[in-house]
Amino acid sequence: MKKVGVAILGLGVVGGGTYQILTKHREFYQRTQNVDIVVESVLELNRERALSLGVPEENIASNIAEVVSDPDVNIVVEVIGGVTAAREFVLAALNAGKTVVTSNKELFCKYSHELERAAKRQNAGLYFEASCVGGVPIIRTLLDGVQANEITSMIGIINGTTNYILTKMYEEGSSYEDCLREAQRLGYAEADPSADVEGFDAAYKLSILSSLAFHTKVPFSKIFREGISGISKDDIADGKELGYVLKLLAIGKQSDAGIEVRVHPAFVRKGHPLASVNDSFNAVYLTGDSVGDVMLYGRGAGALPTGSAIVSDIIYAATHSENKYSTFRNTAGADKDVRFVTDFKSAYYMRMTVEDRPGSLAKISAVFGKHGISIVELMQKPAYMEGKVQLAIVTHRTREMSVRAAVARINTFGEVAHVDTVLRVVS
Amino acid sequence: MKKVGVAILGLGVVGGGTYQILTKHREFYQRTQNVDIVVESVLELNRERALSLGVPEENIASNIAEVVSDPDVNIVVEVIGGVTAAREFVLAALNAGKTVVTSNKELFCKYSHELERAAKRQNAGLYFEASCVGGVPIIRTLLDGVQANEITSMIGIINGTTNYILTKMYEEGSSYEDCLREAQRLGYAEADPSADVEGFDAAYKLSILSSLAFHTKVPFSKIFREGISGISKDDIADGKELGYVLKLLAIGKQSDAGIEVRVHPAFVRKGHPLASVNDSFNAVYLTGDSVGDVMLYGRGAGALPTGSAIVSDIIYAATHSENKYSTFRNTAGADKDVRFVTDFKSAYYMRMTVEDRPGSLAKISAVFGKHGISIVELMQKPAYMEGKVQLAIVTHRTREMSVRAAVARINTFGEVAHVDTVLRVVS
Repeated sequence: MKKVGVAILGLGVVGGGTYQILTKHREFYQRTQNVDIVVESVLELNRERALSLGVPEENIASNIAEVVSDPDVNIVVEVIGGVTAAREFVLAALNAGKTVVTSNKELFCKYSHELERAAKRQNAGLYFEASCVGGVPIIRTLLDGVQANEITSMIGIINGTTNYILTKMYEEGSSYEDCLREAQRLGYAEADPSADVEGFDAAYKLSILSSLAFHTKVPFSKIFREGISGISKDDIADGKELGYVLKLLAIGKQSDAGIEVRVHPAFVRKGHPLASVNDSFNAVYLTGDSVGDVMLYGRGAGALPTGSAIVSDIIYAATHSENKYSTFRNTAGADKDVRFVTDFKSAYYMRMTVEDRPGSLAKISAVFGKHGISIVELMQKPAYMEGKVQLAIVTHRTREMSVRAAVARINTFGEVAHVDTVLRVVS
Repeated sequence: MKKVGVAILGLGVVGGGTYQILTKHREFYQRTQNVDIVVESVLELNRERALSLGVPEENIASNIAEVVSDPDVNIVVEVIGGVTAAREFVLAALNAGKTVVTSNKELFCKYSHELERAAKRQNAGLYFEASCVGGVPIIRTLLDGVQANEITSMIGIINGTTNYILTKMYEEGSSYEDCLREAQRLGYAEADPSADVEGFDAAYKLSILSSLAFHTKVPFSKIFREGISGISKDDIADGKELGYVLKLLAIGKQSDAGIEVRVHPAFVRKGHPLASVNDSFNAVYLTGDSVGDVMLYGRGAGALPTGSAIVSDIIYAATHSENKYSTFRNTAGADKDVRFVTDFKSAYYMRMTVEDRPGSLAKISAVFGKHGISIVELMQKPAYMEGKVQLAIVTHRTREMSVRAAVARINTFGEVAHVDTVLRVVS
């Protein structure tokens, strides 16, 4: 039986989960995968943490050089996070010819070209299933499950923190601030939540997933990004009334016009499979030219789900002798001949405060007409202010730039009308 | 660039779809997969069909010997169906050292041990993603995506025909017979629908999927099987009222008690991700010890979705040089030391016609009590017959054998009570 030695860099949440799975299932993998996977070494500054997980003292390394020079280590798992030490350590491992398995979306998003180059040079493996959507095998699916397809669309709920917050706002009618605090209390959100709530985390993942789906480098810089910190409970409530659920979506599309990549909150029509992805669950809804619609759903984070993805990569690396790299030019930026669509099309939801007198609606309608925007649904409610009403409007599919121009124009009307919220709608 | 020659046996719906995808995407696969896949040969008795798909006359083989002796053919795709010719042809291909890709669930369910033996002998590849759940990469996921997990439960909606019929019955309140006729008219059901509606098709797939998930041979003969032809519109309507949707489920579970495999209609609580899998869509809901719950959703049948699975297997075979076989003893029957659970546990729904007089309910309750069955929900309605009422009952989880014994006992009560329907419930 083939024996494979593993080193784990960092025994935080995911590293700890990975260590637990590997030690618990050693016999199981011998029996079911015909491979003996042994944790030979861990790199963890907090020795107490390592010892408390049951790591034998002699397996705790003192520095990265010790790890990568160990001939018993075949696979190095990087679960430190961040891009400084992680990048240095991963490059050291690859340069020493070790296969690397990482859960680090930011590292892989920003430096995959550099990592892949180092891996290729040494014919080392480079695996990153755990970087996107926790235990859900979305990367394996893109590489080996739907690779017969031209992927035209990919819509994901790929950040658990924001999905937890938005689910609570929907279910309880609470404010963003209250739900964020609750998420922080439960450990679903960081003390500084900006990486999640401003959509950076989702954008790192979208960069990785859309590069694979569209077979070309889609750098972070090309992704339109908007977070959820500006979402009010009124928006959620209006959406609910209109039959929509608000989700932070990561959207990648490819057509003759080019590649379109964006992360932003959007209303999803109830009944759409993505609308019932709640709490910290994640999902990716793919459309391929042959397979049609496919959805993968599961836990996008957590010690054991993410550990599952890491260990699945370890087993894959241990039982496949060839290393495969991206077949496109994996570069720091996008290829010059790849077009990116910025003036994308979507349906829109708008909420505005309007003066309650004859002619107000006509003025607004005229602006919409001028910009080619047509309305699907309109809901009028009394506003909090005297003499005002609130309008909630859902439009047909139209251009982002037309909507921005129309909103800018309406906001010049002063007392007559003011647009409070603009959100995109996926139906 | 590596060149790979493909032969397609049978140009029916799936064979035609496969041919279309391969010819349309030849350049796409060169660019994205670094492999040149060429259809060298097809075996199709209906030459007109082959010619109409654009197969050059010289590529239409006259017999299987011609195909398997062709040195330009590396991969043989079997999409004939049935087990007589298909088995002979697949064995001929494997014996000639060709890699085989098949969509044939019945063949693979019944003869995988024999096919794998032949493949191993010649070190040939044997791929069967298309045999289960169309284009949804469930087999790749079990092999390479969640293989780090002990899978404890797998619940699938894996037959499109029955899901189409049950969805229509639910949405339109129509009878089974009417919905079956509609499905036949639309080509979703065969003229003889028994393979689908009696659960054989789902059971073949469950045999394959549970063998992979549980790492031991789970033969067809061990699968408890019940179809949907006895389902009445009253059952569907009562379920709807109680908040349930009826689905034909394929369930595989593994615990210390053993393996439990069954195909039968069951009520699924609204809100469960499987409850919104409608029409001809399929889904598999997996639970692994690390990854937790994962669901894969997509089209379970059709020329292009199934063709997508076949072509993904072809690309995988073409870009991976090692052939992997099951690591368990792949035999005709189950291993002697594997236990199968027949007295499984479930929640149950029962509908009964009961005499409308004091004491009836007490008699029934006494039987339930004696068999350790406790009730979660009870709904009473007037029955069509004078002096009778209808009871719809949902129980807590209990043993199948207890329910059967209780029903048998109640049915001895003559005029007092009669159980019209028993259905299992997944919540």
